[in-house]
Amino acid sequence: MSLHMSPPSPAALDRPPRVLSSELAAHTGGRVTVAGWLHRRRLLKSVAFAIVRDRAGLSQIVVAAEPARALLETLSEESVVEVTATVTANETAPGGLELTEPQFTVLSEAEPPPVELFRPTLRAGLPVLLDNAPVTLRHPRRKAAFRLAAAAVAGFRAVLSAEGFTEVHTPRIVGSATESGANVFALDYFGRPAFLAQSPQFYKQTLVGVFERVFEVGPVFRAEPHDTVRHLAQYTSLDVEFGFIESYRDVAAVLVEVVAGMLGAVAESGAFHELGISMPRLPEEVPHIHFADAMEMLGRELGEDLTGEDDLSPAHERRLGEWALREHGSDFLVVSGYPMRKRPFYTAPEPGRPGYSDSFDLLFRGTEMVTGGRRLHRYEDYVAALAARGEGTEPYESYLSVFRHGMPPHGGFAIGLERFTAQLTGAANVREVTLFPRDLHRLTP
Amino acid sequence: MSLHMSPPSPAALDRPPRVLSSELAAHTGGRVTVAGWLHRRRLLKSVAFAIVRDRAGLSQIVVAAEPARALLETLSEESVVEVTATVTANETAPGGLELTEPQFTVLSEAEPPPVELFRPTLRAGLPVLLDNAPVTLRHPRRKAAFRLAAAAVAGFRAVLSAEGFTEVHTPRIVGSATESGANVFALDYFGRPAFLAQSPQFYKQTLVGVFERVFEVGPVFRAEPHDTVRHLAQYTSLDVEFGFIESYRDVAAVLVEVVAGMLGAVAESGAFHELGISMPRLPEEVPHIHFADAMEMLGRELGEDLTGEDDLSPAHERRLGEWALREHGSDFLVVSGYPMRKRPFYTAPEPGRPGYSDSFDLLFRGTEMVTGGRRLHRYEDYVAALAARGEGTEPYESYLSVFRHGMPPHGGFAIGLERFTAQLTGAANVREVTLFPRDLHRLTP
Repeated sequence: MSLHMSPPSPAALDRPPRVLSSELAAHTGGRVTVAGWLHRRRLLKSVAFAIVRDRAGLSQIVVAAEPARALLETLSEESVVEVTATVTANETAPGGLELTEPQFTVLSEAEPPPVELFRPTLRAGLPVLLDNAPVTLRHPRRKAAFRLAAAAVAGFRAVLSAEGFTEVHTPRIVGSATESGANVFALDYFGRPAFLAQSPQFYKQTLVGVFERVFEVGPVFRAEPHDTVRHLAQYTSLDVEFGFIESYRDVAAVLVEVVAGMLGAVAESGAFHELGISMPRLPEEVPHIHFADAMEMLGRELGEDLTGEDDLSPAHERRLGEWALREHGSDFLVVSGYPMRKRPFYTAPEPGRPGYSDSFDLLFRGTEMVTGGRRLHRYEDYVAALAARGEGTEPYESYLSVFRHGMPPHGGFAIGLERFTAQLTGAANVREVTLFPRDLHRLTP
Repeated sequence: MSLHMSPPSPAALDRPPRVLSSELAAHTGGRVTVAGWLHRRRLLKSVAFAIVRDRAGLSQIVVAAEPARALLETLSEESVVEVTATVTANETAPGGLELTEPQFTVLSEAEPPPVELFRPTLRAGLPVLLDNAPVTLRHPRRKAAFRLAAAAVAGFRAVLSAEGFTEVHTPRIVGSATESGANVFALDYFGRPAFLAQSPQFYKQTLVGVFERVFEVGPVFRAEPHDTVRHLAQYTSLDVEFGFIESYRDVAAVLVEVVAGMLGAVAESGAFHELGISMPRLPEEVPHIHFADAMEMLGRELGEDLTGEDDLSPAHERRLGEWALREHGSDFLVVSGYPMRKRPFYTAPEPGRPGYSDSFDLLFRGTEMVTGGRRLHRYEDYVAALAARGEGTEPYESYLSVFRHGMPPHGGFAIGLERFTAQLTGAANVREVTLFPRDLHRLTP
């Protein structure tokens, strides 16, 4: 009556239990079963090789005799097989081990894959890779980027959980557009108009009033009409918000701790190694410059008058990134104090410095990676901020009401997981590191 | 230039750093600062008490003199304050400690809350609680249920990560309805029709082909036209899928391990204690009964002929739950082999037992908690399964194509986080344990 793993099937009775490709060394000389996808066949005259891919890596199987040879000749790559064989040391084999005297069981026969997955680099263009994502994602290099992303998210959560943050889950269907009226997906909600959430901004702020410190990992939606390498209609937002802060510095300090935890978890997962990329330089003291000082420095360097500019151009960001690396040995740079008119209405102003905000961007190698800052926390400040922009409070009333009920000074940030992964892996297009991207043109697979 | 936590503001220079209410004992006799919400005021003639709530709990502050007394009289509950005071032992105070000689700083003044949050039990009906969620969620008992949910999700991930599962993030906007055509939200996707995902079912199966073992935590959407205590238009689905299994038993065994990890994490978080509920009985050997045997047993007990019944009624489930507790000392029961015609088309049949499925439900105290099972893994089996239901493959073609490309035998399950939390806490309505529920009537807050 009680529940155990499956009793062995009759076919399984005479075969040893499954081991992963990474576990073979412990079984040298013994019989094992490996299972996975037929990654590659090499049919030479006197001998054939089958490479089997499982979640841990590859195993090389030597096929020297019938009936295995005849079977292998009929199988397409990507067929799913179970192979019972002897683990044999061979200096010339990858990893010094190969499997000999194999007995194959075919679990599932495959059609030839649309793209050759056994090549070290996929030879198809991005549209082909994305159209055939269910198969092309199996390529070890593509897969590794998603393992990296998963490790980064685990690191994100680990740091925040240790710091007393509570994970929350907030609505993705909302009654009014949040960040701005534009780029929002509209929805028929039981006969009423509704929208897909562009961010959990208002909910995470509200929940600071409940839990003090919150984070959320979830999809957000932008009806982005531009077809760029950086924009998706759905992305995974890693959101953080917390109370009882003094200034944006407290937010940036938590962000740096979080990013350090994410990079540490990625390093530990082996994903940097797998992808052949090096650990970014994140010094204990991350360099930090005020927007006004950055503009002055850039103006001096470029011999231009940048006074009154209210944003950094991509070229400016690149130069600042070079400066951070050159002067501070850092791939990361915090730029604070961006002009208020470039920040959303809920942003708090920099105390004693009119026109500047108490917010920041984290640049990674000269491109924006994360935006964060302190928010307004008093109802009357929201009313004033909206009035200063010529807006009324009405569209935001449901959101603003919480600021009548006691909210501490607070702030937070959001990390876009796909962009973070693209930046870390050097992917030219965010779609390369998105399992099934959604954009202007793409609704399947 | 480098980034540190905020330099202390002038006002902060003469006050000790903030400690949490749970950390007071370590500071007995010393001056500390606590910060939080004014949970309750008690203005007696000779003395007043202020209870301050922070993320760790409550602190009692004795207000014996001016100007603190006068200030306290003007403040509404839920105002946000910072209090510097002396930690004083007092046997009659809650926890044996109170704060004396306080100096208050008001961070944010609140309007009187819509519901009295200091009462041990909230005295408002559910609609009032939900309409005022931004404030009513602050009530310690309400908040505790969400801490429980967060701990459960952390436990879920910990078990799966340790077992080699990869966390994934899949599309919530899809080109065709997944589980069934009904109850789906329609969307305008750049001028094309699209739908909100009812589950990540097809994606998680596809990703077994990539990672072998995957899990996902994310929102799913059902345009549920019925207003019941169990249904939401958005809920958080904890999805698991993995390959190279023999039967549903392998899936149920992982589920039991996952549930044990979730309960363990909840116990460790203190949430059971906080909510005054006991740890459910999950024996090492979870009892397990086949649908046909369950029907026979129930038929005997009830003196009814249940042959040919193809589902368990709620009353049957209750009886089975009682049986599991009585005979096996378990709050949990696995019922396997539900008739195929009650399971979705991707369900694998039970080998050698026509009409029954290789799937199961996990019952908790006599109600369904989780559904899982083995899935079909060969393309031709899908074609046959759909044909047997009088359906063509066309609506599913994009999903089914992966089964032409080599998929191992696989299976999985999905846990609805809100229902899980409701069942564990004994909440009568799933909305009680949803931060901002979405349903037929509710689109705000």
